[in-house]
Amino acid sequence: MSSVCIQVINPNTSRAMTETIGAAARAAAAPGTEIVAVCPTEGVPSIEGHFDEAIAAVGVLEQIKAGRQQGVSGHVIACFGDPGLLAARELAQGPVVGIAEAAMHMATLVATRFSIVTTLPRTLIIARHLLHQYGFYHHCAGLHAIDLPVLALEDGSGRAQEQVRQRCIQALKEDGCGAIVLGCGGMATLAQELTRELHVPVIDGVSAAVKMVESLVALGLSTSKQGDLAFPEAKNLGGRFQSFN
Amino acid sequence: MSSVCIQVINPNTSRAMTETIGAAARAAAAPGTEIVAVCPTEGVPSIEGHFDEAIAAVGVLEQIKAGRQQGVSGHVIACFGDPGLLAARELAQGPVVGIAEAAMHMATLVATRFSIVTTLPRTLIIARHLLHQYGFYHHCAGLHAIDLPVLALEDGSGRAQEQVRQRCIQALKEDGCGAIVLGCGGMATLAQELTRELHVPVIDGVSAAVKMVESLVALGLSTSKQGDLAFPEAKNLGGRFQSFN
Amino acid sequence: MSSVCIQVINPNTSRAMTETIGAAARAAAAPGTEIVAVCPTEGVPSIEGHFDEAIAAVGVLEQIKAGRQQGVSGHVIACFGDPGLLAARELAQGPVVGIAEAAMHMATLVATRFSIVTTLPRTLIIARHLLHQYGFYHHCAGLHAIDLPVLALEDGSGRAQEQVRQRCIQALKEDGCGAIVLGCGGMATLAQELTRELHVPVIDGVSAAVKMVESLVALGLSTSKQGDLAFPEAKNLGGRFQSFN
Amino acid sequence: MSSVCIQVINPNTSRAMTETIGAAARAAAAPGTEIVAVCPTEGVPSIEGHFDEAIAAVGVLEQIKAGRQQGVSGHVIACFGDPGLLAARELAQGPVVGIAEAAMHMATLVATRFSIVTTLPRTLIIARHLLHQYGFYHHCAGLHAIDLPVLALEDGSGRAQEQVRQRCIQALKEDGCGAIVLGCGGMATLAQELTRELHVPVIDGVSAAVKMVESLVALGLSTSKQGDLAFPEAKNLGGRFQSFN
Amino acid sequence: MSSVCIQVINPNTSRAMTETIGAAARAAAAPGTEIVAVCPTEGVPSIEGHFDEAIAAVGVLEQIKAGRQQGVSGHVIACFGDPGLLAARELAQGPVVGIAEAAMHMATLVATRFSIVTTLPRTLIIARHLLHQYGFYHHCAGLHAIDLPVLALEDGSGRAQEQVRQRCIQALKEDGCGAIVLGCGGMATLAQELTRELHVPVIDGVSAAVKMVESLVALGLSTSKQGDLAFPEAKNLGGRFQSFN
Amino acid sequence: MSSVCIQVINPNTSRAMTETIGAAARAAAAPGTEIVAVCPTEGVPSIEGHFDEAIAAVGVLEQIKAGRQQGVSGHVIACFGDPGLLAARELAQGPVVGIAEAAMHMATLVATRFSIVTTLPRTLIIARHLLHQYGFYHHCAGLHAIDLPVLALEDGSGRAQEQVRQRCIQALKEDGCGAIVLGCGGMATLAQELTRELHVPVIDGVSAAVKMVESLVALGLSTSKQGDLAFPEAKNLGGRFQSFN
Repeated sequence: MSSVCIQVINPNTSRAMTETIGAAARAAAAPGTEIVAVCPTEGVPSIEGHFDEAIAAVGVLEQIKAGRQQGVSGHVIACFGDPGLLAARELAQGPVVGIAEAAMHMATLVATRFSIVTTLPRTLIIARHLLHQYGFYHHCAGLHAIDLPVLALEDGSGRAQEQVRQRCIQALKEDGCGAIVLGCGGMATLAQELTRELHVPVIDGVSAAVKMVESLVALGLSTSKQGDLAFPEAKNLGGRFQSFN
Repeated sequence: MSSVCIQVINPNTSRAMTETIGAAARAAAAPGTEIVAVCPTEGVPSIEGHFDEAIAAVGVLEQIKAGRQQGVSGHVIACFGDPGLLAARELAQGPVVGIAEAAMHMATLVATRFSIVTTLPRTLIIARHLLHQYGFYHHCAGLHAIDLPVLALEDGSGRAQEQVRQRCIQALKEDGCGAIVLGCGGMATLAQELTRELHVPVIDGVSAAVKMVESLVALGLSTSKQGDLAFPEAKNLGGRFQSFN
Repeated sequence: MSSVCIQVINPNTSRAMTETIGAAARAAAAPGTEIVAVCPTEGVPSIEGHFDEAIAAVGVLEQIKAGRQQGVSGHVIACFGDPGLLAARELAQGPVVGIAEAAMHMATLVATRFSIVTTLPRTLIIARHLLHQYGFYHHCAGLHAIDLPVLALEDGSGRAQEQVRQRCIQALKEDGCGAIVLGCGGMATLAQELTRELHVPVIDGVSAAVKMVESLVALGLSTSKQGDLAFPEAKNLGGRFQSFN
Repeated sequence: MSSVCIQVINPNTSRAMTETIGAAARAAAAPGTEIVAVCPTEGVPSIEGHFDEAIAAVGVLEQIKAGRQQGVSGHVIACFGDPGLLAARELAQGPVVGIAEAAMHMATLVATRFSIVTTLPRTLIIARHLLHQYGFYHHCAGLHAIDLPVLALEDGSGRAQEQVRQRCIQALKEDGCGAIVLGCGGMATLAQELTRELHVPVIDGVSAAVKMVESLVALGLSTSKQGDLAFPEAKNLGGRFQSFN
Repeated sequence: MSSVCIQVINPNTSRAMTETIGAAARAAAAPGTEIVAVCPTEGVPSIEGHFDEAIAAVGVLEQIKAGRQQGVSGHVIACFGDPGLLAARELAQGPVVGIAEAAMHMATLVATRFSIVTTLPRTLIIARHLLHQYGFYHHCAGLHAIDLPVLALEDGSGRAQEQVRQRCIQALKEDGCGAIVLGCGGMATLAQELTRELHVPVIDGVSAAVKMVESLVALGLSTSKQGDLAFPEAKNLGGRFQSFN
Repeated sequence: MSSVCIQVINPNTSRAMTETIGAAARAAAAPGTEIVAVCPTEGVPSIEGHFDEAIAAVGVLEQIKAGRQQGVSGHVIACFGDPGLLAARELAQGPVVGIAEAAMHMATLVATRFSIVTTLPRTLIIARHLLHQYGFYHHCAGLHAIDLPVLALEDGSGRAQEQVRQRCIQALKEDGCGAIVLGCGGMATLAQELTRELHVPVIDGVSAAVKMVESLVALGLSTSKQGDLAFPEAKNLGGRFQSFN
């Protein structure tokens, strides 16, 4: 394992999306950083609601545990709802960063207010809750959904991508925002192109999270193991959760 | 099945606590209400952090699905962190109420500010986040932990119960609160006794949630199936999550 | 007096509306619950602003006192501004619930965000202030007024009712909400019909508050008499307020 | 009537306190300002809770109406809970300012954070709610009560005054505040003396509100009569409220 | 120097605007109040962003120091962003009030919610931040910009003034507000005329701030010199900042 | 100039502190990153209040302009109040990050709540305001000051450093926090040692900000030049501000 190794966890089971995300992570990583892109072996093929998130969280946590055993330096949770984030922090030794979190943080550094463009309308409530939880509610100028499912981003037609682009243009016009946050790991490849075309920062969480983890690792900062993010109390988990024992 | 049947889900796998919770639910239920107290077959024996919650959520959701198939009228999630609440609402046909939620709501109806007494300090952050999410942050006068694990409430010694009592007395003295919310499903049996002794409402979430679900059922109000709590998108879940298909 | 008796106070002096409200309360009440619907003998015929509320509060409080002397189990304040709520809690022995409060609480249990449909635009500020006070500001997706006075709901033409219906439809379309809260006691009869037609929970506060009071009574929870909701300090009230001595 | 005439309404029926308040108002008034200090003929002798406020509000509103008919330039509501403030604004033609409001506003102009010292602990919740309503919650460093009733300020012993003084000293030491707001109209005479002794602004709401009303009058700014503070809808009020017709 | 002397500081270097502002201040001042209208000798000719504010703050602070040495009673910072306000409070002996602050405070006394009409869209973020800082975010119904630079108000054409008027009308229609706050010192002369025409309070911060300072001076209240607004620590400032030594 | 060059601006004029900060920045920088540590030639020797910040901001902005002309990749403002941050963003082409901002952001990634330890008590209000502005108010568990001036950190005695250490220990014990943010650029060298000793993340903003800027540069994200952070409007600045023309 190289000196810095970041485990990028796609919480859904889509291999194609895991590759998209892995590629985006690698493109963002520093020369000395190895990216290990993984996804759960069992779970949901895409994440578009709270139920999907709850199922996905288990797979995320298993990957976190596996990554920790492999000695990775840190972890990225590469779904815009950051499923299982605080649980993952309990389980991890190294830092864990979610892509919604990373993108929102970065956005506040380059604009006074940002807008979010995501996939299905039903996921907007998740973004809304995260804005409150992370403290960025008043930094958000608007929330937009293209009304296409996550996997439409992987169908090769480019239709979803074009709708994302249109929504970004509309958000810039209507919201008075200075930056756009892309609300799905599957949009990772769009960020740079849209940044160039629209002349504002268009932020992808995957690459943002990779840089955040690299930064924390470089600074010797890891998840606090005092207090409420300490390792979980040792318990005997039964059945299909045995792997956590 | 009787005309109203409420499924009370203890999210941990402790049989003893499931019985405690079931008894508290039955004691609170209206004459016409049947209580079905269940717990996951696999999961964590007690819930004391985000990781425990994430694991428990899967079992909660399976029970929700089973309960819905059995035609229950509504569901209670009987752990003070309300694990899996929004996911459960997506999966359920009937109303779903968490015990933290129910207790906090009730507390705001009988006092201007309430304090919370819970088990381990590391769970305080969960209560804190729920206060923000539910809108009751400014209604909370103080958060207290007795620094004993959840299962100490089931060890028969009464030591944990006595510490809860002491903390309630201290909270009333120091916080200027008018009511106490008990922060654990395992404390359900303490509420009435403490209410009498301390001359303030001491609120147990299990009984509160049962009444909330009964109320919603009686009013013909169920989880909104328009928008972000609609049934999950149909997906093919693999492996150990097959039961959700 | 039956084992559970709930006093439902219409804060305005409209007999017709008191009957509407009483009927809605009775329809929602459990078999063992007696509903006593009352209104002040002196006051305002409808409540459409802060002045109306201030006048109405006196009548509400007199009814609270009378109800307490009659030994009622609890009280409902059946005007959407919840006039005199905290004062009533001081004066009451049993629990007191406002219909705005009850409807908003219930709405958060069945949807992530709700919209409010009320009568005159000038009452919107009252709803807005209550959202802040109760903690539900961020759970509200939109506030709407039909621009007809309260008593238009009692004119028999059904015009106001139709406008409420239209506004609910519009709110669902524009606000991204999952439930509707009806913002007037006089709309109580509309809730069930609209719930059926619009396929989302449409919530009437009168029936919601009756269930809340029943729940609190069943749980043995009453207004906290320690601290800031204790009975008012004994004082000698003069003139027309003598009845409070 | 002189060119500027401010009606200062003591919402309780204490003549002694009305004189104290009137004197404080006169001491603060500009040369050209006439002060008319009034109190309700019927109501509560002191205001120490929500019930007292609700009763007092009626008397306040009658005085507002009378003052408007006499052509006063503006009104002050001289009780720290600002009872009936928004209702008074509906009824008034000129500006209406509450003393809690005025004192809090002024405090934010001379210090980054202020503390409040008031009478009975049970009134703290009223101050707390006003802080939220007016927007100054984060400007308040602490809330303190001397645990003596309002009228102890009028018993001539000076004991209550001494306790206020001690609490101010304590607040400055513990809260890190830069100013003190006195939380009772009956403390009006203490402000200047304590300002001198403690070397920080100690703010009395009565004098602050007089200056606020003078300012609004001088600027030609009066209560907005468009929207939610418009005159109340014309209604037929019965019985003891006939005077409002 | 007269008994009350208020230094009104136009933070930009425009002589014409300083005169406009001075005239507005004089028109608002009480008979016994002398107005000294000043502007920095060096700085920015208009203030339309954070950079402009940062530069202007130095000139404001020099004027504050000069004013204090001349023994003025208090200071007004007459630019809607209130540049250098807290720094000025540290440096001043007397009270310091910003015009945004004053106008917003006044607006909350005469309406439940107000809207703001300002010049360039890029200054809206400054108003937005002030709303948060002062606590009035929830009292603001809308923020509007006419998209003309500040100095367009001084070009004699009346075009900017007409656009302000149009925007006020639009804001009243769309926002449901009860008052308008004019968001630029250069709009001072418009307030009275628009108040008359639009029949709602249209508030100019310059005159509002003059009355606020007069009020504080009359009450003997000055900037708290205990704690975080104490005079700056004595330091040796070099070069062009020597005048502050 | 190397491929990535970060200008680290110490806003005060202390050469010793500039060196301390520069060393901390270099220690944190990636191999390919050049650090240029600068400070204003004129200004304040230390920053302990709003006045100091206002003066320092001018020097910061001159350095930003100079840095931009030299083609630096990005800028760090290395004083815990982040003086001039938004103005700097207007002036800069590349990203600008403040050290308070960077440290607070990082802290939320490794702990649920953090405490701040800073120098003089009078600077606490600045940290408090930043917590609100950045959205982290509810992530902060406590604010502490050692009551020694900034330059005590440079007196070679180690006394200030020891007091920082003691306060960190106290904060961990009393606040229930999981991480500590060091509230002064001059504390940069303490972070790693304290992280090791106290077994929680102790975060220095200088190194955190360097990593943030490196991250933004690597991602091709720069300050948004659309909207309110666009370059300042071209204006003719006179006298000592000529250098900005």
